[in-house]
Amino acid sequence: MPRRVLVLHGPNLDLLGEREPDVYGRLRLAEVNAAIESWAARSGWTVEIFQSNHEGALIDAMHAARGRVRFQVVNAAAYTHTSVALRDAIRAVAVPTIEVHLSNIHAREPFRHTSLLAPVCVGVICGLGLHSYLAALGAGAALYGGEQG
Amino acid sequence: MPRRVLVLHGPNLDLLGEREPDVYGRLRLAEVNAAIESWAARSGWTVEIFQSNHEGALIDAMHAARGRVRFQVVNAAAYTHTSVALRDAIRAVAVPTIEVHLSNIHAREPFRHTSLLAPVCVGVICGLGLHSYLAALGAGAALYGGEQG
Amino acid sequence: MPRRVLVLHGPNLDLLGEREPDVYGRLRLAEVNAAIESWAARSGWTVEIFQSNHEGALIDAMHAARGRVRFQVVNAAAYTHTSVALRDAIRAVAVPTIEVHLSNIHAREPFRHTSLLAPVCVGVICGLGLHSYLAALGAGAALYGGEQG
Amino acid sequence: MPRRVLVLHGPNLDLLGEREPDVYGRLRLAEVNAAIESWAARSGWTVEIFQSNHEGALIDAMHAARGRVRFQVVNAAAYTHTSVALRDAIRAVAVPTIEVHLSNIHAREPFRHTSLLAPVCVGVICGLGLHSYLAALGAGAALYGGEQG
Amino acid sequence: MPRRVLVLHGPNLDLLGEREPDVYGRLRLAEVNAAIESWAARSGWTVEIFQSNHEGALIDAMHAARGRVRFQVVNAAAYTHTSVALRDAIRAVAVPTIEVHLSNIHAREPFRHTSLLAPVCVGVICGLGLHSYLAALGAGAALYGGEQG
Amino acid sequence: MPRRVLVLHGPNLDLLGEREPDVYGRLRLAEVNAAIESWAARSGWTVEIFQSNHEGALIDAMHAARGRVRFQVVNAAAYTHTSVALRDAIRAVAVPTIEVHLSNIHAREPFRHTSLLAPVCVGVICGLGLHSYLAALGAGAALYGGEQG
Amino acid sequence: MPRRVLVLHGPNLDLLGEREPDVYGRLRLAEVNAAIESWAARSGWTVEIFQSNHEGALIDAMHAARGRVRFQVVNAAAYTHTSVALRDAIRAVAVPTIEVHLSNIHAREPFRHTSLLAPVCVGVICGLGLHSYLAALGAGAALYGGEQG
Amino acid sequence: MPRRVLVLHGPNLDLLGEREPDVYGRLRLAEVNAAIESWAARSGWTVEIFQSNHEGALIDAMHAARGRVRFQVVNAAAYTHTSVALRDAIRAVAVPTIEVHLSNIHAREPFRHTSLLAPVCVGVICGLGLHSYLAALGAGAALYGGEQG
Amino acid sequence: MPRRVLVLHGPNLDLLGEREPDVYGRLRLAEVNAAIESWAARSGWTVEIFQSNHEGALIDAMHAARGRVRFQVVNAAAYTHTSVALRDAIRAVAVPTIEVHLSNIHAREPFRHTSLLAPVCVGVICGLGLHSYLAALGAGAALYGGEQG
Amino acid sequence: MPRRVLVLHGPNLDLLGEREPDVYGRLRLAEVNAAIESWAARSGWTVEIFQSNHEGALIDAMHAARGRVRFQVVNAAAYTHTSVALRDAIRAVAVPTIEVHLSNIHAREPFRHTSLLAPVCVGVICGLGLHSYLAALGAGAALYGGEQG
Amino acid sequence: MPRRVLVLHGPNLDLLGEREPDVYGRLRLAEVNAAIESWAARSGWTVEIFQSNHEGALIDAMHAARGRVRFQVVNAAAYTHTSVALRDAIRAVAVPTIEVHLSNIHAREPFRHTSLLAPVCVGVICGLGLHSYLAALGAGAALYGGEQG
Amino acid sequence: MPRRVLVLHGPNLDLLGEREPDVYGRLRLAEVNAAIESWAARSGWTVEIFQSNHEGALIDAMHAARGRVRFQVVNAAAYTHTSVALRDAIRAVAVPTIEVHLSNIHAREPFRHTSLLAPVCVGVICGLGLHSYLAALGAGAALYGGEQG
Repeated sequence: MPRRVLVLHGPNLDLLGEREPDVYGRLRLAEVNAAIESWAARSGWTVEIFQSNHEGALIDAMHAARGRVRFQVVNAAAYTHTSVALRDAIRAVAVPTIEVHLSNIHAREPFRHTSLLAPVCVGVICGLGLHSYLAALGAGAALYGGEQG
Repeated sequence: MPRRVLVLHGPNLDLLGEREPDVYGRLRLAEVNAAIESWAARSGWTVEIFQSNHEGALIDAMHAARGRVRFQVVNAAAYTHTSVALRDAIRAVAVPTIEVHLSNIHAREPFRHTSLLAPVCVGVICGLGLHSYLAALGAGAALYGGEQG
Repeated sequence: MPRRVLVLHGPNLDLLGEREPDVYGRLRLAEVNAAIESWAARSGWTVEIFQSNHEGALIDAMHAARGRVRFQVVNAAAYTHTSVALRDAIRAVAVPTIEVHLSNIHAREPFRHTSLLAPVCVGVICGLGLHSYLAALGAGAALYGGEQG
Repeated sequence: MPRRVLVLHGPNLDLLGEREPDVYGRLRLAEVNAAIESWAARSGWTVEIFQSNHEGALIDAMHAARGRVRFQVVNAAAYTHTSVALRDAIRAVAVPTIEVHLSNIHAREPFRHTSLLAPVCVGVICGLGLHSYLAALGAGAALYGGEQG
Repeated sequence: MPRRVLVLHGPNLDLLGEREPDVYGRLRLAEVNAAIESWAARSGWTVEIFQSNHEGALIDAMHAARGRVRFQVVNAAAYTHTSVALRDAIRAVAVPTIEVHLSNIHAREPFRHTSLLAPVCVGVICGLGLHSYLAALGAGAALYGGEQG
Repeated sequence: MPRRVLVLHGPNLDLLGEREPDVYGRLRLAEVNAAIESWAARSGWTVEIFQSNHEGALIDAMHAARGRVRFQVVNAAAYTHTSVALRDAIRAVAVPTIEVHLSNIHAREPFRHTSLLAPVCVGVICGLGLHSYLAALGAGAALYGGEQG
Repeated sequence: MPRRVLVLHGPNLDLLGEREPDVYGRLRLAEVNAAIESWAARSGWTVEIFQSNHEGALIDAMHAARGRVRFQVVNAAAYTHTSVALRDAIRAVAVPTIEVHLSNIHAREPFRHTSLLAPVCVGVICGLGLHSYLAALGAGAALYGGEQG
Repeated sequence: MPRRVLVLHGPNLDLLGEREPDVYGRLRLAEVNAAIESWAARSGWTVEIFQSNHEGALIDAMHAARGRVRFQVVNAAAYTHTSVALRDAIRAVAVPTIEVHLSNIHAREPFRHTSLLAPVCVGVICGLGLHSYLAALGAGAALYGGEQG
Repeated sequence: MPRRVLVLHGPNLDLLGEREPDVYGRLRLAEVNAAIESWAARSGWTVEIFQSNHEGALIDAMHAARGRVRFQVVNAAAYTHTSVALRDAIRAVAVPTIEVHLSNIHAREPFRHTSLLAPVCVGVICGLGLHSYLAALGAGAALYGGEQG
Repeated sequence: MPRRVLVLHGPNLDLLGEREPDVYGRLRLAEVNAAIESWAARSGWTVEIFQSNHEGALIDAMHAARGRVRFQVVNAAAYTHTSVALRDAIRAVAVPTIEVHLSNIHAREPFRHTSLLAPVCVGVICGLGLHSYLAALGAGAALYGGEQG
Repeated sequence: MPRRVLVLHGPNLDLLGEREPDVYGRLRLAEVNAAIESWAARSGWTVEIFQSNHEGALIDAMHAARGRVRFQVVNAAAYTHTSVALRDAIRAVAVPTIEVHLSNIHAREPFRHTSLLAPVCVGVICGLGLHSYLAALGAGAALYGGEQG
Repeated sequence: MPRRVLVLHGPNLDLLGEREPDVYGRLRLAEVNAAIESWAARSGWTVEIFQSNHEGALIDAMHAARGRVRFQVVNAAAYTHTSVALRDAIRAVAVPTIEVHLSNIHAREPFRHTSLLAPVCVGVICGLGLHSYLAALGAGAALYGGEQG
């Protein structure tokens, strides 16, 4: 399988940078995506990026990438805490998944402390802003970038 | 900004009046909407009304109205109790929001007693049937209808 | 029965406007009462207003108004969250009751999220400041102001 | 000490018979009191009866009867479930106390299943209507009616 | 139906008086039964008394008495707190039931504070020793002893 | 109404047989659907089958079948445990519903032990694989297949 | 092993049809058993049926059938929710077990929502009345009726 | 503002010394008050002391002292654990408050371990008998006795 | 009293060795009993051994041994976690009791972590297989084997 | 025993004044210790002061002071909420202990509201800054400074 | 590996016999150790004994004994209930571990009912005083004393 | 401040690679440290590495590094879930902290799902083995490696 990775952005991330800058900073989603694509260009990976506010659309995207990507980086945003369906999708597609969050979810409201996805992911990274994505991509590349992928 | 307000109806409200009349009465959604539009005509406000059974579509609608409405009146129905994504959307669009319910949710099943949206809304009105909407519109117009909106 | 309504203010509301203005604003109870009486004059209703810091006095007042008012608007303040006796009083007098709060109790401490009164009220309005009272009076007048009241 | 007993009726019991007859029946408080006085006359006991909607007034009444009554029969109604102060009063006056309820509190709302008073009472009787009081008086007379009281 | 009542004693009550006298006193089960029979003789009722340590045997006894007794007095002892089957039996036989306990179960271990039977009984009496039974029989006779039973 | 039944498959069931075979076996959704259609052909029923990963699309499908089917068989998969909106839809359309699951949800993770749908369904069948669907269809046909259906 | 199945009825099912007809309907246990035996005759299976109000007797019956039946259908009634011993018995005898209930236990009291037996059964069927048994027998026959049993 | 302090005694403290001496010792309230007044005389403070069994009366007393005292020492006794209204009163009057208890509430029943008042007080002192009051007065005098008080 | 000890085996232990060998090993109950009797012969104690699947029968056995044995070793199996009646029986017979389990109940399902019996036993031994019994017998003999027993 | 008292400072108190001044103020530990020693000099007591970040070292210090001090003042800081071992040490050394905290732990994070030590201490003082220590020393001196100590 | 066993005593056990004799008796740690060494001499085992009040020191001791002892007997005292680190150490060293307690922890405070260590131990013995240690050593010797140990 | 970082390894990590390889893999701590030092050499950072099984020693190490390092990477292992003292230390030293874990703590026992440290850290990385450390170092260097650090 070629070196390809899927990056999923969940609900409301389309407003990143315009939304609650005290929590999320002023970085816009386009800038996050540019940094991700820059990493990909630099590292010899192909990256697919998808954002949706629809839980079902995120599941459809995972199903569609199944068998085509070596791993996926998922920021499910609010669905992290409520979606058993996304959890089942991660299990169902059997793609190694790294959960990421821009903010430190453990320093926010209690209902954000629990992730339904984390137990079926490889690992979790949160609180490092844009670097949450980049660290996930870097670690994923190290773990799944070998010849046998 | 002109005097414009968004009214959102959540899942299953399209069946209002045909559904569980002992809980919700016999009023149909068209009648609710007519009363809302009549209030708007009377009060010099423009009103936009949207109903969907899709959580993502309700979020998309909020995003689309951002910066165009002075406040919104949201009856998220069942999503009131399960949707962190709608809560985040209310925060993200930064539009003052009044949560409404036709029935008194505190007199129903325990899982309807907790609203994930209420903490990020201006206020909540429930139990007054059609008057829940009209009272929300009236109060919102008083609070946000000034020249500086 | 003539068009008469009882408005009850619970404990510490006598200090309104002097107390925690960041939570409750600077409006004083006298101003709230003036607005209520102005509404009454305008709408053809008689209004009785009573404030007490004593749970028992509030119950006595409800008992005394029984059979004389068409509905009541109750801001039980702190007793909202602790008084089974006020709840029983609302049931016992069988007067339609609309619970109101100046602030959005769902955005405050967790123990204020639960109301013992709400399940036996017609509906609840919170977070709209003075407009919580006025919206309750308006909706109550619409619901209980008919000839058969 | 002469054979004297205190009977305390808590909040909203003044409306007995007029209030929620499906729960409490149609018996009025005056009839309950007449039956209690008739029992007293028949049994050679003096009975003092007091009703109040004020928690503090019920405590004051217990304090006043301390050292003058052999036992007390207490229907604290709603305060049963919320009043640590009444519980402390029962302990403080050291008068044997039998808790009574007209209805079966265990067949009602969950918050009525727990009594703060019961652990400091001799016993509890509920669900037998007027006979809850009479059974308590009969048992109390058997237990505390001896020469040494 | 003739005036007949069933009295059921649950597990370990056969050791009454020999067991934990600081909790249950020194009264033996034979004495309790003698007092019950003396009451029956005095009051014109027939009484059937049954003790077993077997949950199933107590259920069988209730089934057998169905249609033959006007009410039953049940001290289910430990099964009070664990037996959904006895609860279902009370419902199934549709015989009015008064739950009794010798000791005040609310002043003992927390797991004894909850009765699975109470919600399907007419009422509950506890803490009055032998008088718990006698008060239950007296009240039951008053309630179910009429011509129409 | 003709003998017509709706079968709904929830999120990730499109991957059945390819997904976690140790939990769900190797049966593919097409085979399940073939068996359902074979049952329909054999039994004289018309069956409509719909799968979606979108909660809103499942609700829309229920609304669309309202008044056209005699009963529905619903495997809501992950949404079983999180969707108040589907629960409300079942109530709103007033179509008798049998909830089914391929696996025994009670032998899996604790969050799968609770179904939000079950309390508003006629009944539930789980753990019997393909036979969960067939048993539901058979029982539904027996219950709702009569002339007056 | 020949095609033989054990059907166990738990406590109070002997009163079926005479007990709470609003919950359980008017069907009597003899009719249920006749339908089961008719199914057996029709399907070429031998069926053994046993009812008891004694938890221990139900366990003894399971032990006795061990190695002699291909599967068992168990309606443990109230013991479903309280009996770890029956759960252990199902594990100990290693006979495939389908748990059944006449009523929809998820639509009843909360303590009936949890089954101690379900996690060690193959599957669960509830809410379909007599058809709960027949669907279980049908599915069990399909699963365990092969030559190798 | 002159150096004046309010000391509030809550319900049942009028019986101090006569009530449960194993818990509270034999000290009477008059002796506590004498020691407080002796401290005041010695320290150049004016002290106002008030006891009531009425929650509302304690709130009224706080309201009346507002703006006239530099700090208050509050032993709310049983109301410590149940009164949101007293908590709101402490906030409303904006007088620095030190909560005191004669006994160590953490070594007593679990429901006494939580104070609704403590989070809005400056600090808490418990378990030191009469010295709880004196230590509170001493610390309060040190903190609030300066010229600018 | 002569040196006599009662050993009680609870439900499903009759199938020991045939049941779930991965949990309980392959040791049969007859072998356990032989080892116990061998210990007794070696140590100069008389041992009585009883197994039953009936909770009531185990209670009856305890009652019957009361006053005849110096201590008892009880493996109540599943009833350990559900039987208040066995707990009361241990208290009622006032025989020193050592609770034993073959497996380490703390390494199994959460509902097996709590023993209703342990708080009224002298001590508990689990996880040591056959040695759980032998260690209990050895310790009991050391503690209760003296002349005064 | 001479008038000697042990003062224990727990983990991170060595950084006092440099750490989170908004919570703890700017007072340094050396200043606290100076004030304590000044009190001691003034009052005729010998004081021993010890700080450690090691739970075991705090226990060792308590053991070492056993029999040599009349009482101890313990600010266990974070170990207050997690250390059963310190609690056992307080019990084991049988030295009267007053728990103190600089800040009001009830106005901070919920996990700081519960003290494992408080139930085995004489009393608790919190929220008064340096005066928490001084009030504890003063009260301890009053309680334990007598000839018989 | 030679027959060697490690015995670990946790915090405050150095004060055994001097501390709370009503809970732990008057036996001193030296006597416990003498009995253990006497058992070792008698049984042909080498025993290493270590006591510390420091959690880290107990972990260090386990690490140091790894690969040198056949099993260990651990009385972690207070750390039993709070130390995930000791639990991890037991797992990490992979030495069979028997947890012991002098007292019956299930008859003490609720926070002592749960052991963090038990799930990773072979078994648990409590309540038998000195015999808890001796029974653990005896059973351990039987289980791990074979040639292949 | 020069570019210096502290890496802390908590309890039992000294046995890494020798301990539970199915959970932690076969990587030894020396190899982790070598990779960290290699990263440091490559990136122009000085790294200090410290491992201890003692909670107090880890706190001491943090205190000692205060003001000398730009950020710290902390794998507190078991203390993550139990140590309020380490949490307070992170706050007290005011050094930006990234929490890391080798394994995915959310896929392990429930008590490992909650971190007491996470809310006071910048972010958390888990589940990526050695890459958890490297990703933390990389992100920390990006965030804190600037001239102003």
